[in-house]
Amino acid sequence: MPWSLTREDVERIAIGAGILGTGGGGNPYRGMVRAKLELAAGRALQVVGLDELPDDALVVPIGGMGAPTVGMEKLGNGREEANAVRMVCAHLGVEAAATIPIEVGGSNSFVPLIAGAQLGLPTVDADGMGRAFPESSMISFYFDGVAPSPVVMTDSRDRKIVIERAGTPREQERIARAICVQLGGRAMVADAPIPVQRLREVAIPGTLRFAHRIGAAVLAAQASGDDPVAAVCAAADGQVLFGGKVVDVDRRFERGYNVGRLTLAGAGPWQGEASTIDLQNEFLVCRVGGEVRASVPDLIALVDSERGSPITTEVVRYGLRVTVIGIPAPAQLTTPQALACVGPAAFGYDLPFTPLERRPAPPGA
Amino acid sequence: MPWSLTREDVERIAIGAGILGTGGGGNPYRGMVRAKLELAAGRALQVVGLDELPDDALVVPIGGMGAPTVGMEKLGNGREEANAVRMVCAHLGVEAAATIPIEVGGSNSFVPLIAGAQLGLPTVDADGMGRAFPESSMISFYFDGVAPSPVVMTDSRDRKIVIERAGTPREQERIARAICVQLGGRAMVADAPIPVQRLREVAIPGTLRFAHRIGAAVLAAQASGDDPVAAVCAAADGQVLFGGKVVDVDRRFERGYNVGRLTLAGAGPWQGEASTIDLQNEFLVCRVGGEVRASVPDLIALVDSERGSPITTEVVRYGLRVTVIGIPAPAQLTTPQALACVGPAAFGYDLPFTPLERRPAPPGA
Repeated sequence: MPWSLTREDVERIAIGAGILGTGGGGNPYRGMVRAKLELAAGRALQVVGLDELPDDALVVPIGGMGAPTVGMEKLGNGREEANAVRMVCAHLGVEAAATIPIEVGGSNSFVPLIAGAQLGLPTVDADGMGRAFPESSMISFYFDGVAPSPVVMTDSRDRKIVIERAGTPREQERIARAICVQLGGRAMVADAPIPVQRLREVAIPGTLRFAHRIGAAVLAAQASGDDPVAAVCAAADGQVLFGGKVVDVDRRFERGYNVGRLTLAGAGPWQGEASTIDLQNEFLVCRVGGEVRASVPDLIALVDSERGSPITTEVVRYGLRVTVIGIPAPAQLTTPQALACVGPAAFGYDLPFTPLERRPAPPGA
Repeated sequence: MPWSLTREDVERIAIGAGILGTGGGGNPYRGMVRAKLELAAGRALQVVGLDELPDDALVVPIGGMGAPTVGMEKLGNGREEANAVRMVCAHLGVEAAATIPIEVGGSNSFVPLIAGAQLGLPTVDADGMGRAFPESSMISFYFDGVAPSPVVMTDSRDRKIVIERAGTPREQERIARAICVQLGGRAMVADAPIPVQRLREVAIPGTLRFAHRIGAAVLAAQASGDDPVAAVCAAADGQVLFGGKVVDVDRRFERGYNVGRLTLAGAGPWQGEASTIDLQNEFLVCRVGGEVRASVPDLIALVDSERGSPITTEVVRYGLRVTVIGIPAPAQLTTPQALACVGPAAFGYDLPFTPLERRPAPPGA
């Protein structure tokens, strides 16, 4: 039975997806506003489970691509989401039964919902990351090394480029990223539709409901005066890695991504300690006192220490009081095949992946 | 009546297209070898005039894209030319009646002939530049500001990208160039077919025969002991701008192009003088003693002073004895509309276009 989102659901998903976005996936506030506009226009934001669709139903993966800072300034025309789905289906001469987020993180949780609302299609409660990642080669649907074909890219000026065959997912990422930069640093991307049967094998299920649960916990804690950070940890199986103040933001636009590093000065139990967080659109590696405390594919979420609200890479700034929360990656991201695509080495680190669970508990946890 | 090229015709066109290429258009020797292989395989290289085809016959513009230095190292698979034509026709569901060079210069004179040989199609004796230019926004077919749609790009690994809508020709160039870089710096490009009727208005006619005439003159002079440089000037209405030795080659791979500057030290009548030639794949501006002697869209050709053979940007090197020949641009390139696309300002120069004819005769001419 489809779940029809209310305004309140949208607000909860925005917070949860912001936390699961680990800094990226596009500004969640913008996504939330866009989703509410669909509701205000009388259209439905429908969510269905993978078990509610027939095996051979075709589902279009869709998401925004680009640097989060650019997404804050380069607004859309409101039609790219649906246009991208229409284009890829027309190109192949097929009909889509639903949409699915490429990544549940950030505003990209809402992109397939908005496309679906305009097209009268539901969105599958699943995604290809269980979080957000910066590169389109990091989608669980393509961990087998077979790049989607075709991929359609469009933008606010209705420009349209079809990548028909690009080689490996990594080569496809490089080509798509170069196109994205030329489209102004932000583009809408729809991949070739995937049958539901296949998505049951390769997608990460239940991630929209997971985001909703995390957001609901944060909002409930804020309303009741409970600790929202503890609420996030309880809802998302997270652990606090560090708490303190942002004392430096080194963030550049490079090769179509936001890249850089945050530096935090500890407070409370971490007084006198320092932490750094490397970023490429998303947070990649968190170090405390120079030691790695968490790394991709585990989730490194930055939240406002008082309110538990997510702080994304495009808005983080000097002086914010923040808490770093580590959340174990979904099991689908930690297989050897997956780690080759989304582990530290895939981001250029000469670092083994040590899952969060095996680390010593931090002093404040 | 179609003109079926012989091996000798191919050799003549290679020299003439090398000279008309003004340093670029791809290495003419490579193009010549590829064309001869088609003849050796028993296929025909057929040339037809625009008046020999029906008004509504569709002609596919095709050419190689990329930096000439890359084209020397990244060889093709021998199928890209025909594949690109097939792809763009299949995409639109139309049949091509012929191919046409995007640019007659360099190896790009042979690209449509090779595609045509493999597909059993003739190549139109006309092109979109009457020379070579570095950017796909500099094709006379699109001087009206309407970019071709779609454009198909492919490469030696059969990768395939379709630019369906890109905005203006300049925006399309930027997108295509970024894709070309990701494909390794060299790609095959086929544009949407153009009806013959329209080509009669926008193409530069007779340029394959023009290249053939220049090449024949050079070979005849070489055989008879006449001055090949004088033969080029007579056949192409050219004038000698400078003669001397290459004393510096500053050539880099930047943004997908070869860019840089040659410096020549004068010899004979130019003893004691110096000349520089700016390049972006092709030669753009020739200065003598710091004064501009010729600029785009006029042709600046570099030839071996002894043999009259063209010297292209990817092979020019220190110590070569060269003569710089200026050739007036075809009239289609010097209208105000054309100059906005291919004049000095289109290459970033704050320089008016002064056609070759109006300059004072150089000392050695």
